[in-house]
Amino acid sequence: MRPSGRAVDQLRPVSLETGVNRHAEGSCLIGFGETRVLCLASVEERVPPWLRGQGRGWVTAEYGMLPRSTGSRTPREAARGKQSGRTQEIQRLIGRSLRAVVDLQALGEVQITVDCDVLQADGGTRTASVTGGYVALALAIDHLRAAGTLSVDPLRDHVAAVSCGLYQGQAVLDLDYAEDSNAEADANFVLAGQGGIVEIQGTAEDSPFAPDAFDAMFALARKGITELVAAQAEALAKARA
Amino acid sequence: MRPSGRAVDQLRPVSLETGVNRHAEGSCLIGFGETRVLCLASVEERVPPWLRGQGRGWVTAEYGMLPRSTGSRTPREAARGKQSGRTQEIQRLIGRSLRAVVDLQALGEVQITVDCDVLQADGGTRTASVTGGYVALALAIDHLRAAGTLSVDPLRDHVAAVSCGLYQGQAVLDLDYAEDSNAEADANFVLAGQGGIVEIQGTAEDSPFAPDAFDAMFALARKGITELVAAQAEALAKARA
Amino acid sequence: MRPSGRAVDQLRPVSLETGVNRHAEGSCLIGFGETRVLCLASVEERVPPWLRGQGRGWVTAEYGMLPRSTGSRTPREAARGKQSGRTQEIQRLIGRSLRAVVDLQALGEVQITVDCDVLQADGGTRTASVTGGYVALALAIDHLRAAGTLSVDPLRDHVAAVSCGLYQGQAVLDLDYAEDSNAEADANFVLAGQGGIVEIQGTAEDSPFAPDAFDAMFALARKGITELVAAQAEALAKARA
Amino acid sequence: MRPSGRAVDQLRPVSLETGVNRHAEGSCLIGFGETRVLCLASVEERVPPWLRGQGRGWVTAEYGMLPRSTGSRTPREAARGKQSGRTQEIQRLIGRSLRAVVDLQALGEVQITVDCDVLQADGGTRTASVTGGYVALALAIDHLRAAGTLSVDPLRDHVAAVSCGLYQGQAVLDLDYAEDSNAEADANFVLAGQGGIVEIQGTAEDSPFAPDAFDAMFALARKGITELVAAQAEALAKARA
Amino acid sequence: MRPSGRAVDQLRPVSLETGVNRHAEGSCLIGFGETRVLCLASVEERVPPWLRGQGRGWVTAEYGMLPRSTGSRTPREAARGKQSGRTQEIQRLIGRSLRAVVDLQALGEVQITVDCDVLQADGGTRTASVTGGYVALALAIDHLRAAGTLSVDPLRDHVAAVSCGLYQGQAVLDLDYAEDSNAEADANFVLAGQGGIVEIQGTAEDSPFAPDAFDAMFALARKGITELVAAQAEALAKARA
Amino acid sequence: MRPSGRAVDQLRPVSLETGVNRHAEGSCLIGFGETRVLCLASVEERVPPWLRGQGRGWVTAEYGMLPRSTGSRTPREAARGKQSGRTQEIQRLIGRSLRAVVDLQALGEVQITVDCDVLQADGGTRTASVTGGYVALALAIDHLRAAGTLSVDPLRDHVAAVSCGLYQGQAVLDLDYAEDSNAEADANFVLAGQGGIVEIQGTAEDSPFAPDAFDAMFALARKGITELVAAQAEALAKARA
Repeated sequence: MRPSGRAVDQLRPVSLETGVNRHAEGSCLIGFGETRVLCLASVEERVPPWLRGQGRGWVTAEYGMLPRSTGSRTPREAARGKQSGRTQEIQRLIGRSLRAVVDLQALGEVQITVDCDVLQADGGTRTASVTGGYVALALAIDHLRAAGTLSVDPLRDHVAAVSCGLYQGQAVLDLDYAEDSNAEADANFVLAGQGGIVEIQGTAEDSPFAPDAFDAMFALARKGITELVAAQAEALAKARA
Repeated sequence: MRPSGRAVDQLRPVSLETGVNRHAEGSCLIGFGETRVLCLASVEERVPPWLRGQGRGWVTAEYGMLPRSTGSRTPREAARGKQSGRTQEIQRLIGRSLRAVVDLQALGEVQITVDCDVLQADGGTRTASVTGGYVALALAIDHLRAAGTLSVDPLRDHVAAVSCGLYQGQAVLDLDYAEDSNAEADANFVLAGQGGIVEIQGTAEDSPFAPDAFDAMFALARKGITELVAAQAEALAKARA
Repeated sequence: MRPSGRAVDQLRPVSLETGVNRHAEGSCLIGFGETRVLCLASVEERVPPWLRGQGRGWVTAEYGMLPRSTGSRTPREAARGKQSGRTQEIQRLIGRSLRAVVDLQALGEVQITVDCDVLQADGGTRTASVTGGYVALALAIDHLRAAGTLSVDPLRDHVAAVSCGLYQGQAVLDLDYAEDSNAEADANFVLAGQGGIVEIQGTAEDSPFAPDAFDAMFALARKGITELVAAQAEALAKARA
Repeated sequence: MRPSGRAVDQLRPVSLETGVNRHAEGSCLIGFGETRVLCLASVEERVPPWLRGQGRGWVTAEYGMLPRSTGSRTPREAARGKQSGRTQEIQRLIGRSLRAVVDLQALGEVQITVDCDVLQADGGTRTASVTGGYVALALAIDHLRAAGTLSVDPLRDHVAAVSCGLYQGQAVLDLDYAEDSNAEADANFVLAGQGGIVEIQGTAEDSPFAPDAFDAMFALARKGITELVAAQAEALAKARA
Repeated sequence: MRPSGRAVDQLRPVSLETGVNRHAEGSCLIGFGETRVLCLASVEERVPPWLRGQGRGWVTAEYGMLPRSTGSRTPREAARGKQSGRTQEIQRLIGRSLRAVVDLQALGEVQITVDCDVLQADGGTRTASVTGGYVALALAIDHLRAAGTLSVDPLRDHVAAVSCGLYQGQAVLDLDYAEDSNAEADANFVLAGQGGIVEIQGTAEDSPFAPDAFDAMFALARKGITELVAAQAEALAKARA
Repeated sequence: MRPSGRAVDQLRPVSLETGVNRHAEGSCLIGFGETRVLCLASVEERVPPWLRGQGRGWVTAEYGMLPRSTGSRTPREAARGKQSGRTQEIQRLIGRSLRAVVDLQALGEVQITVDCDVLQADGGTRTASVTGGYVALALAIDHLRAAGTLSVDPLRDHVAAVSCGLYQGQAVLDLDYAEDSNAEADANFVLAGQGGIVEIQGTAEDSPFAPDAFDAMFALARKGITELVAAQAEALAKARA
């Protein structure tokens, strides 16, 4: 039934390649099927003005799409002179999601910016950004710990994200673009490794949908995120080996 | 336990005053407790370029806060030269929510813009905007029907919204500012009159929260939205009398 | 002769409602006929950089129109990314007018910003802004005096404003939109309570007009402003009672 | 008494040099004492969108200051990314002033843009711009008439402008920078050749000023503008010889 | 003598990977040592407004750097709201360089945009962009030819680019970042496959340099570009196989 | 053969008028034939943030064109809200060129900004800006030395610039607009007084050009710049007399 032939509860193949940038303190190129997002975590000594002198750190994210990451070319935001509402919404979501698993007090007065740049889009770029961004963030924190800057680990848990949707009346896991553009509803779930809710965003497309359908999507998301967290753990273990 | 002394499932007093602007085709000044949002619906003959010539209409929304609607003065977005990410996120949410209950084909090639301007903020400005914006939209559609432009009613249902939160570990309905700034989690629910889900946005503040807490908030939201829909119906009945 | 049936030297009904915003240190909703401007005065401890450390204060104003305050919807300045020349011209006028009656030395190192937002426009929004803005400013100064911050009163006089025009060859007082859009000339007068000139702006519409006509408009303005100052005094007395 | 030693009713030396740009249809370099403004009038076939197809023309103006036209360097507006409120206010004034003496119907569907760029500033740049801009405009209209595009003369009269001020309690004509920065009040008068009022803008500096002082400034302005109109006529006669 | 230990006339290892994006009509990931630029060519039916209806095509380029492509994080241009002067200078150079080898008449009314996005920077990003951009462009033209849109080949020659510099008084080929930031002069050469000059930009760093040194750099560039053209030919042959 | 009738190695008449602005520390109005650029050098005590406290100075340039300096009116950059890529490219070139002959250490912690504003354009505005900007800069340095601020002369040499082109297959010196818009290639040369290269920018127009042609242009440039440096020396001698 799904255009890709996947089972309703089947993720696309997930790849997490680390160490892909020589400058960034943490880096991860994540693939959700054909979607590719380059996640680069940068450590800076300066925190935002409103945080200075409080001994607490900050984690933030920025998001962008290369103009031809999409099926037809999208105008470059730098040339248009502003980031779209969609871009800002997504980067705010990524930032909030990552901060939910970081003890900012333990991080100390340091800012980590996670840049998520979409090299190729096929649906799920924001959920891939959260999932890959977590790995880049974890590696940047490793870098700080290796440098002796941090004595305790400010990471409290994993965080990962996946989208679900109602496609032809059926709840399905991890929408690709062909499904996403025809879904009746879609929802993005961001969960911590231990199952706590970090963020839920569900949206009807043309008309309202039933609470039951929402519950079905949530159940699929839990399954998918368990698999994504395992993939993160594996990538991190390999990078640290 | 709540700063306002309300019961956990108690909305703030809701007021919906219609006919508050002599120019707009539909208007509603909504109050959720001390929060006041002026919702003005404007009908225009022109639809956006990508819709032209298709015989379908469009409903969109814009959102703004007066600089001193907030406790301390917020810089004016027009003077800063751009709308914040938060503003864009909110106005996209309002627009999607209203479109979910409109048959755009039945509306015909007409655009209705619902401007939601916050005169005074005390939490819940986005949910008040959806709820009051619906009333302004319905009155603008009445205006088109009275003018003979529309033979069928493009409105398929009510839509209303409310926020819930976890405050001191307890799920509560309709956060005011004092609660919102101290909540452990908050969620905005947008539901149609018949109970269908239009939009759900739940966010953890400092750390992930349990799925049970989400369910408790959803139950409160259903109760609150039932009351809001009744208040909308009453305000519309009075305006049409 | 006038579309409204008013005598040539007759103001529209004036209303000045105070205490209309719970956050602002001074607030006034002014009505000139169908024109409604919400004037909110905010006190801030910070003065502009070029004034710092001199012990003097500053009074400034910002002006905006809600998109549907006008007969047909005007695009939102925050969305367009800049304030129009007209907006800047008006807010500079309001700021200069208010400063002309304030002893900035006596005010001390404090800034008061008066936001004038037009909820509904029917001509005369800039003169209503000055007139209502004065009341908001006076109440904000009351607030500072009540707080013990100010021992002397920095307000030296009232200031109020009204427009006049040549309509069908006749000088008339307080143009509404129907007159304004057909006037041969119009002039805005800002006068202090004791009759001193604060600002005069007279403009021919299609062709130059005679000095006599200017004198006739000035005489009408003096009459109208005397009435506006009385209305300000009454509103302040009531607010202070 | 005046820093320059001039009599109270004495203009600075006025110079009007025409034919100073090989591309512009009309050009005039005007000097008011040390103030120098280059006024270039450009004819274009296109009128603004809202005028198209009506057979009427348009006259507009733009104003700018070279960064070092001022005593200390002013940041370049093109680099700052926007025109200041002051710039917009001045260019709107110049445009309105020139249009007041043009029969736009007789001009036909043509736009004339008068660019007024200040090469050196010493007070009075806006009044010099109106006065010199008129000469550039008249020459551009000559150009259209010589080309056979226009059969009737759309210019109905001269227009010129001068500032007056209260300096040490005395009304004086044509403020230079030294006076302007110390005046108690200043007023700009734009009059047509036959004495009709085109625009009056009077502003108190620190405190309101008396109506008598305004009358005294107006009388000085009439004298000065008579002299400026004579200088315009002479420059045009010479250019046309 | 060179930080990298290379001979003065030795390029860094060059890699040209094609077919790296599923959406773009032509794609190439180029590596000049540690510098990585993703070059994606997009075909669009629309040419710029000033070219419409002339039967000629257009080739243009855009350039960007991911924020953490650099040693320390560079603010994102989309967030800053404008492209820097450097960015604009580089993308204009790439566009001119590619157009110099395309017969725009033969291309027909089609636009090809080559986006060059720097994933990792280590000097030479603009020369890598031209060299890799050519390969992406050639593949996009292949795509048009395969689709039967083009009957003749609009590509007249190869084009490739390399930088040279004076480092410790010695002319060297293909500067990496360590050399670039300490060079006394640097020059970018863009040459066609047959040796014709497309663009030369030479710049002294701290003080003027001798014409002899320029000649030495030019000679090195010719050698380097011969090698780059061979690498392009090989990559294209492989992609076409 | 040349539209102007000049010999291939003949400059247009060059004029360098100094002392043309009463405010600027150094000023020069340069003419290259019909091209006129007003170059004003401003001394400021403040250096850019990244230079503060190092005891070194800075020289920078800004460039602009009056809207009607060109054959048809060009929109004003301040009104469009940004400087074009061409403008930024040119002003970066002027700044680099001037810095190449200044000992910034000897200048001390002072910034000199050279504003080059084109009053009338007929080709060669960037080369005229460098050549005239040098004279303005030298006079501003004279001003600092006369004021006793500088004990040593931070100017190490002259710098001047000229364009060359291939016009009908022939290398020619100092392109005017008629040639520039029809040239097969053009190159801008910036040389120091002693012949050292400061900047070279050569560009093919429609197709690559031969290295021989580049050499021919370079030879012409050397001759032209020798003449320009002599004209600079003469103008400075006269200004200092």
